[in-house]
Amino acid sequence: MMAGNFQRALKLRSALRHLNLHSSLSSTATARHSPAGHCSHSPSTTSWQFAVCHRKLHTGGDELKPSPAAAPERLPFSRITPEDLAFFREILPGRTITDPDLLESSNVDWLKTVRGSSEVLLRPQTTEEVSRILKYCNSRNLAVNPQGGNTGLVGGSVPVYDEIILSTALMNNILTFHSISGILTCQSGCVLENLSLYLEERDFIMPLDLGAKGSCHIGGNVATNAGGLRLLRYGSLHGTVLGLEVVLADGQVLDCLATLRKDNTGYDLKQLFIGSEGTLGVITAVSILCPRKPRSVNVVFLGCETFEQLLKTFQLCRGMLGEILSAYEFLDSECMRLLNTHLKLPNPISDCPFYVVIETSGSDATHDGEKLHNFLDEAMTSSLVMDGTVATEDSKIKALWSMRERVTESLTHDGFTYKYDISLPLEQLYQLVTDMREHLGDRAKSVVGYGHVGDGNLHLNITSPAKDPALLAAIEPFVYEWTAKCQGSISAEHGLGLKKRNYIYYSKPSQAVALMSNIKAMLDPKGILNPYKTLPDNLK
Amino acid sequence: MMAGNFQRALKLRSALRHLNLHSSLSSTATARHSPAGHCSHSPSTTSWQFAVCHRKLHTGGDELKPSPAAAPERLPFSRITPEDLAFFREILPGRTITDPDLLESSNVDWLKTVRGSSEVLLRPQTTEEVSRILKYCNSRNLAVNPQGGNTGLVGGSVPVYDEIILSTALMNNILTFHSISGILTCQSGCVLENLSLYLEERDFIMPLDLGAKGSCHIGGNVATNAGGLRLLRYGSLHGTVLGLEVVLADGQVLDCLATLRKDNTGYDLKQLFIGSEGTLGVITAVSILCPRKPRSVNVVFLGCETFEQLLKTFQLCRGMLGEILSAYEFLDSECMRLLNTHLKLPNPISDCPFYVVIETSGSDATHDGEKLHNFLDEAMTSSLVMDGTVATEDSKIKALWSMRERVTESLTHDGFTYKYDISLPLEQLYQLVTDMREHLGDRAKSVVGYGHVGDGNLHLNITSPAKDPALLAAIEPFVYEWTAKCQGSISAEHGLGLKKRNYIYYSKPSQAVALMSNIKAMLDPKGILNPYKTLPDNLK
Repeated sequence: MMAGNFQRALKLRSALRHLNLHSSLSSTATARHSPAGHCSHSPSTTSWQFAVCHRKLHTGGDELKPSPAAAPERLPFSRITPEDLAFFREILPGRTITDPDLLESSNVDWLKTVRGSSEVLLRPQTTEEVSRILKYCNSRNLAVNPQGGNTGLVGGSVPVYDEIILSTALMNNILTFHSISGILTCQSGCVLENLSLYLEERDFIMPLDLGAKGSCHIGGNVATNAGGLRLLRYGSLHGTVLGLEVVLADGQVLDCLATLRKDNTGYDLKQLFIGSEGTLGVITAVSILCPRKPRSVNVVFLGCETFEQLLKTFQLCRGMLGEILSAYEFLDSECMRLLNTHLKLPNPISDCPFYVVIETSGSDATHDGEKLHNFLDEAMTSSLVMDGTVATEDSKIKALWSMRERVTESLTHDGFTYKYDISLPLEQLYQLVTDMREHLGDRAKSVVGYGHVGDGNLHLNITSPAKDPALLAAIEPFVYEWTAKCQGSISAEHGLGLKKRNYIYYSKPSQAVALMSNIKAMLDPKGILNPYKTLPDNLK
Repeated sequence: MMAGNFQRALKLRSALRHLNLHSSLSSTATARHSPAGHCSHSPSTTSWQFAVCHRKLHTGGDELKPSPAAAPERLPFSRITPEDLAFFREILPGRTITDPDLLESSNVDWLKTVRGSSEVLLRPQTTEEVSRILKYCNSRNLAVNPQGGNTGLVGGSVPVYDEIILSTALMNNILTFHSISGILTCQSGCVLENLSLYLEERDFIMPLDLGAKGSCHIGGNVATNAGGLRLLRYGSLHGTVLGLEVVLADGQVLDCLATLRKDNTGYDLKQLFIGSEGTLGVITAVSILCPRKPRSVNVVFLGCETFEQLLKTFQLCRGMLGEILSAYEFLDSECMRLLNTHLKLPNPISDCPFYVVIETSGSDATHDGEKLHNFLDEAMTSSLVMDGTVATEDSKIKALWSMRERVTESLTHDGFTYKYDISLPLEQLYQLVTDMREHLGDRAKSVVGYGHVGDGNLHLNITSPAKDPALLAAIEPFVYEWTAKCQGSISAEHGLGLKKRNYIYYSKPSQAVALMSNIKAMLDPKGILNPYKTLPDNLK
């Protein structure tokens, strides 16, 4: 599973690098100080498409009014001067990047749908350097875009205009690891996979795992409150992050880097920065509680007749697998069709309307195997599942996981994809897919649903042969209104960033957004940190 | 275990009620508008002692300067008028309490060490009523003490002067429970044990368990970020609380009552209120993620020669018991001596310097038993443990748990007790007890250590025949300075409340405290919510 994700991340990353080389000249020439754009293509599209579309973001065509996802006007921040560059070069010799070719991959996001036009990339190595940079930028009213691995999906990790890019890439030291408590402390630029490898050698694992693990930084994971594949078992970062060191907008270092499981001395300030997408401070170090490495892992692939049966199967396995259940993921038959058609992946079981991937991880292979056997026996006897297959060997585990993990890739081959990351009460989770399919009729090419059932998180994806403003208008705001009616979240794990900031009111009341805005004003009065992100353009 | 805790809570609660009846006349007569006092006795002391000492808090005698724990001067809040009472009686007919006898138990804390002199207790039933009360109090500049089950240990849950007591006792409705997701939503005044019983009938449990479960309210648990006995397994409330409804100081209702496991739409505001001890808002409803009820529970009582071996045993059992480990608690031989002497509890194993209580809970009794057997076999073979006994039956489980749970009770029979609740890195956890013992020499009667090893949480208790200002001066600030040197926390799970607010700088840097103070000023500009609590009297 991990290796599978890693390969996929590498492949996409490599496609991205290839594309950047081709597109850098044409795009940088026109992109200077223009608003971030949203491109109508998948990561495998050509550089030509990339160059022409960078000025629009979800606009649905020039003739329509800008969508709520479009970038607002540039705010009146200072523009960078030769004196500013001289200052940065003095404190960061050799680590103040201004070469447009080198800047290119930091100006564009992972999906290549949003791009900025920053002219300087700073690569500090220490908290003290980050502090000096921010103190200077704050006094000069220069906007800053904090950047980790730049793997975000909502345009939160790239500049919108000419914000200075502050990269954590060189802040990649592991500071301490306590093998009794399992508490790891490291700089924020450590790549998630490197931390995983470090821990696995010591019989521990990270409490989170993502497809982008080969590139994403732990600081970015924390700043975006990343979810991923282990949340069902180990919970969210709000529980597993024990301490943070954060540099505030004015350069002040806030040391909340505790390595304690319990600390009730005053308000838990670090929580504010978890999920704040770099708009309240720059995370420079993280301490996190790591679980022991499981000795036994099993994966089951099952088919169900209805989504109701899929949920009943979830209830059954929560009871019978109990403490060893570590993932309960699903995909629908439309996903399977795309996997078959575009990736030639054969269905490992007979055709069913719904498929489930269940993972167990535990400390005793015999016990885990017995629990799984008993659960499967009960699920089959009670006719909750139609068919299924079990994997205990690494290669078959990876093959079964790939049926879930490669759905995203199969979608890129199906056409232009509209992507939604929705949290819903479990009972309503799939109804949105059914209703959307009926609502769109034959206007969409494919309407597919998959995701993390265990976490109540649906990935709804809709494809069409090409970008289709009329289709988009049929999807939005329908999808957001539907979600709001069910008290769902319009962004389960991706965050709001640039793209979704103005949709916040579908999931949060105006009082809450006003309070967020007050917190932003308190911590970053000049608004220099990651402007145009997370908070809406206007308060209600 | 649960029944054991419950019995203890009931016993103490009943002792408290008994005491209140005896003490109410003498104490209320002298207590009006005087600062909260700290009494030099255990809950089983007499009413006479109670009445004479209520003006002091850790002062160590009238001749010494007030300690940092003493109450500051009354702040210039308005005093309650007949018009105010008329307003409250109009919106809360029959639920506006002014009878001093009825007010008495709300004016004094569970340990009977702190008492206020409030003249009115309000018992709202709805969020709307709480909102109207706070809107009024804010406009009138009337201070408010939010109160749940009043089981706190740091004087945070009672008024200091004449603050209006706002009780959540009548806000005790369960709102929803989803049996597939395990998400419970309820009003904040639900008693923890009632929630546990409700869930157990539905094959779920609460993710937290406390000795005070028979009295404490879930809203108070959240407001104080209660730790308790299940934290090792299910994590802190920052991870398990999914949503909160909070009434702010000005009466505004902040609805963050999501029932979703994932929601990354803006800053996670509810986190601010978890552990804020009622100083930032009044929690009116909670949604929380509940685990499935385990089918099998085992308890082991072991003896170790050294604390180092006790930690090695912890490492071994984290690996071998893995996902079924649910508690790893310890007590030292001094605790055992007090249990033998004062409670006549016999040692279930041979005499050892250290004792461990390990609990497993899982979904399969056979598997759990085998894991436990293998772990014990390895621990004995490698000479990590000297002796041990296992319990699988309820009555023996309770008996073994009582060796850990009744240490507090045995201390009350040993003399006047100075209590500390410290988080430390595991390696240093017991060294504080050893150093303190050496530091105090024969000035202390007993110096004992016990607590939650799995969470890095030490309960250090020091007894003397009577209150002893010289002994206190030898303990403090020694204990806080020692803790600060190890980057520990001077309050692991009890909070700061009134008693520990001025010690915050031992665990938090001045920048962090200043930011907390800014947050307080933003959310409660007039400072009416639980004044004199959590934040220090002066900023550094």
